[in-house]
Amino acid sequence: MDTPENLKEKLYSVIFGTDTPAGKRFDILLITAILISVVAVILESIETIESQYAFQLHTIEWFFTILFTIEYGLRLYCSPNPRGYATSFYGLIDLLAVLPTYLSLIIPSTNLLLIIRLFRVLRIFRVLKLLQYTGEANILWRSLIRSRRKIFIFLFSVLIIVTIFGSLMYIIEGPIFGFTSIPRSIYWAIVTVTTVGYGDITPHTVFGQAIAAMAMLTGYAIIAVPTGIISAELINEINRDRLTLRCSNCERSGHESDANFCKHCGAELPERNESDTNHPEKLF
Amino acid sequence: MDTPENLKEKLYSVIFGTDTPAGKRFDILLITAILISVVAVILESIETIESQYAFQLHTIEWFFTILFTIEYGLRLYCSPNPRGYATSFYGLIDLLAVLPTYLSLIIPSTNLLLIIRLFRVLRIFRVLKLLQYTGEANILWRSLIRSRRKIFIFLFSVLIIVTIFGSLMYIIEGPIFGFTSIPRSIYWAIVTVTTVGYGDITPHTVFGQAIAAMAMLTGYAIIAVPTGIISAELINEINRDRLTLRCSNCERSGHESDANFCKHCGAELPERNESDTNHPEKLF
Amino acid sequence: MDTPENLKEKLYSVIFGTDTPAGKRFDILLITAILISVVAVILESIETIESQYAFQLHTIEWFFTILFTIEYGLRLYCSPNPRGYATSFYGLIDLLAVLPTYLSLIIPSTNLLLIIRLFRVLRIFRVLKLLQYTGEANILWRSLIRSRRKIFIFLFSVLIIVTIFGSLMYIIEGPIFGFTSIPRSIYWAIVTVTTVGYGDITPHTVFGQAIAAMAMLTGYAIIAVPTGIISAELINEINRDRLTLRCSNCERSGHESDANFCKHCGAELPERNESDTNHPEKLF
Amino acid sequence: MDTPENLKEKLYSVIFGTDTPAGKRFDILLITAILISVVAVILESIETIESQYAFQLHTIEWFFTILFTIEYGLRLYCSPNPRGYATSFYGLIDLLAVLPTYLSLIIPSTNLLLIIRLFRVLRIFRVLKLLQYTGEANILWRSLIRSRRKIFIFLFSVLIIVTIFGSLMYIIEGPIFGFTSIPRSIYWAIVTVTTVGYGDITPHTVFGQAIAAMAMLTGYAIIAVPTGIISAELINEINRDRLTLRCSNCERSGHESDANFCKHCGAELPERNESDTNHPEKLF
Repeated sequence: MDTPENLKEKLYSVIFGTDTPAGKRFDILLITAILISVVAVILESIETIESQYAFQLHTIEWFFTILFTIEYGLRLYCSPNPRGYATSFYGLIDLLAVLPTYLSLIIPSTNLLLIIRLFRVLRIFRVLKLLQYTGEANILWRSLIRSRRKIFIFLFSVLIIVTIFGSLMYIIEGPIFGFTSIPRSIYWAIVTVTTVGYGDITPHTVFGQAIAAMAMLTGYAIIAVPTGIISAELINEINRDRLTLRCSNCERSGHESDANFCKHCGAELPERNESDTNHPEKLF
Repeated sequence: MDTPENLKEKLYSVIFGTDTPAGKRFDILLITAILISVVAVILESIETIESQYAFQLHTIEWFFTILFTIEYGLRLYCSPNPRGYATSFYGLIDLLAVLPTYLSLIIPSTNLLLIIRLFRVLRIFRVLKLLQYTGEANILWRSLIRSRRKIFIFLFSVLIIVTIFGSLMYIIEGPIFGFTSIPRSIYWAIVTVTTVGYGDITPHTVFGQAIAAMAMLTGYAIIAVPTGIISAELINEINRDRLTLRCSNCERSGHESDANFCKHCGAELPERNESDTNHPEKLF
Repeated sequence: MDTPENLKEKLYSVIFGTDTPAGKRFDILLITAILISVVAVILESIETIESQYAFQLHTIEWFFTILFTIEYGLRLYCSPNPRGYATSFYGLIDLLAVLPTYLSLIIPSTNLLLIIRLFRVLRIFRVLKLLQYTGEANILWRSLIRSRRKIFIFLFSVLIIVTIFGSLMYIIEGPIFGFTSIPRSIYWAIVTVTTVGYGDITPHTVFGQAIAAMAMLTGYAIIAVPTGIISAELINEINRDRLTLRCSNCERSGHESDANFCKHCGAELPERNESDTNHPEKLF
Repeated sequence: MDTPENLKEKLYSVIFGTDTPAGKRFDILLITAILISVVAVILESIETIESQYAFQLHTIEWFFTILFTIEYGLRLYCSPNPRGYATSFYGLIDLLAVLPTYLSLIIPSTNLLLIIRLFRVLRIFRVLKLLQYTGEANILWRSLIRSRRKIFIFLFSVLIIVTIFGSLMYIIEGPIFGFTSIPRSIYWAIVTVTTVGYGDITPHTVFGQAIAAMAMLTGYAIIAVPTGIISAELINEINRDRLTLRCSNCERSGHESDANFCKHCGAELPERNESDTNHPEKLF
């Protein structure tokens, strides 16, 4: 029989780990449970479905709440640093996903129930976390991380641009044509510069349309900037990925990402993502 | 005279093959027939045209149905693996393109007739298949295939993002402003994040507009991700394409895609796509 | 005094050429004249301006018509191949820019006058032609030319995709929600896939919105394809541009596009676009 | 005690410089002050807030006006070339940010007050200027500068394209469907080609919708051009950035932008942006 310590370690490798068959199976089960619970929340929001299947949806809600409570308890139990887990981003989301359902027993309120549903949806972030372990998501993620400062500076510059365009339009068009305040005009500027273009607020004066046209062309031209940033980083990431894999026979690198044999000597290449990092690639 | 086996082989090379003059001519005829039949379906849907040219369009419908039936029969006949063809994606589309017209004789119904028209339009996929044989489409296609996992993970992440934004807006704006359910709010989030921006559902509260602005900026920034993925792969593909062509005189590669002579020794370069793969490039 | 032949040659180098000071001055005058005449046409279309300045605008119209007629005559006179010029794209536009104004004297009609205005606007294409002679436009142009087949195949694939999405929506949503015919539904699909999103036709059924969401995500993901194509070609073009310039001292290439001195030996670099191709770069 | 000359120099290094701790602190204070004053202007534009907190906002307005006046005076005083500063872009904006508030005492007018607010918002450009000193913004900025001619030629070509599309639609659709003049039709063409798509003016005739679809596809395909331009330049910039940093131990370059140790010999790398250019990177 397992000692409590052994059990804890085993549990840890299953719940937190992703490199054992049991750990992989746990992750697949967890993603499935999260997706079903999110679908249940989404269905609950449709009035015709809610009125007809209220009991079933209620049952599902409690089933997943209890399931996720048990999971949360086990995570706290087997984590080598329970306090660290509890205060981490995912620890808080795991708690927020279950806590409000219990609170709804004490303080019944329709508004609160709505927010509960939201917190359950937030658990979908966990799926994103698991995605991170696949080789492809890793390349995308590292590229985003590497370009985060450039993207941040770009978004900051966009905010300055939309503030100026919004203020201009507030003066030119004014409250008569829907530009009732600068924040609302900035909202219009964001809608325009990002090329979304709802059309809920549009310029009506000739001068306003000229400024709007300038805002559009600005947005159209500067979208190239984040694209350029990410492209440049991705090209580097993909090339690096290619360079880190070496043939065990001739020690040369530079293999294509889908190559199975060394292009220099023909020897079989070592497996990439699976063998050395045990990523749950098979999930997708 | 040809033996049945010889005839079958010849037919196969004409209908399925693309590397003989007869095969190329067949492909051009097939594309022309598909495009005309699709145009006929499109014209049929315009009421003023349908009421005036009902007879002519009906004749065309039956003409192409019979033509495509013969083609389907010949494909089944000459294919070395008829069952494999019949159950393939294109085999099914070829069947679905003709079957409903015959069914409409037995079960007359306006709704069914509409769906028949759709299935005929689906045959246009065949044109895409033939496009694949051109060198350029090949590069695009290989790039898409190579980046399919990255694109899939990207689209999956986008789905998670729009689910969260949609749920948030459902709580913030609520049914009064058109966000009647989470699926509808997710639809709004997709319209916004992809920068389509119909404007059929728009935020009306200040807080809702703030969240919408965040959704827009997110969409504006992350469109860079698929672009970066495809750019990176395309650059690799184009470079590889260049490296595979070697001068038959000096054995050196690295020629531009439109070069006709070796840039190292001036000898004429071997023809690229046509001579070794016999692609029907001349089609376009 | 010049012989007629000499005069012809001189005129040719001024009107058609761009590499002499006189030729450059002529091009600048021509662009100015075209832009003023286009602005006049644009102002004429504004009712309040037209009613107030009818006489002035009429005078400008006839002034430029006579000016462009003289230019057309001179081009015909000095061209070594007048028939070739007259039947070329720009020759036809030059004729169409002046002919309708004379025709309007014989057949007076408001509709015709509108079309006359349009033909005058088409002359703006000449500006594009002159842009071609600048180094930067050249790089952009060569990249577009090199990727024209890929872009064409991409646009063709987009047309097939919008035909399928349009036909689907025609069946799902139908005439009640504005999808009155397949061409109109294809128009909606183009509006959606290109992320323009007017919102004049929008899906109202749940299933229609699901298909629309798919169309949006498709458009959002495949916009990456032309971007990737052009990026890949531009990177090659810019690199090639850099490689063709050699230092006259040390014979090494690879200089940045804005370098004035050789980065290997410090010798002054030969001038790029101006000295060897005499492009009217100074125009911009 | 400091001599006036010494004081002037010290002040100059604090106010204009960014490389001393005092200079950095001043920049952070300045950005904070500008952002608060901009937020105050934005809040003032919201009627409900303006009516309730009129006194507080008025106080803040005067507080920042006096603060920025002192700053402007000090800049004039300590600048080695006061006239040069006063006539520079930022010198003019600094003056325009404070002058109108004083003018409003002499000529009271609601319209003038609005424009005053705008000029204060323009001061946000200063933040952009400070951003320039960070390494990342520098790379983005240099890429934009290097591609400015290509971007300009691209935007010019877009203007020609929208002029032609706008004129075409003015003739095809005409004033009945909202295309009341060519400038308004050009506004529509810009809305369409940039894929903004407000939907305030939309084509209603079949032929108009066909032209609109062409405009959309054009916009969808040519957005690739600026993206390609910036991507190509950014890739070059990032690579150059990497090549300029040399290990002080082994003299080799090519280090990743986030590397702290030489990848060839393991020696610690010299600090990048801070040590040699003293950019206020810590700001962000």
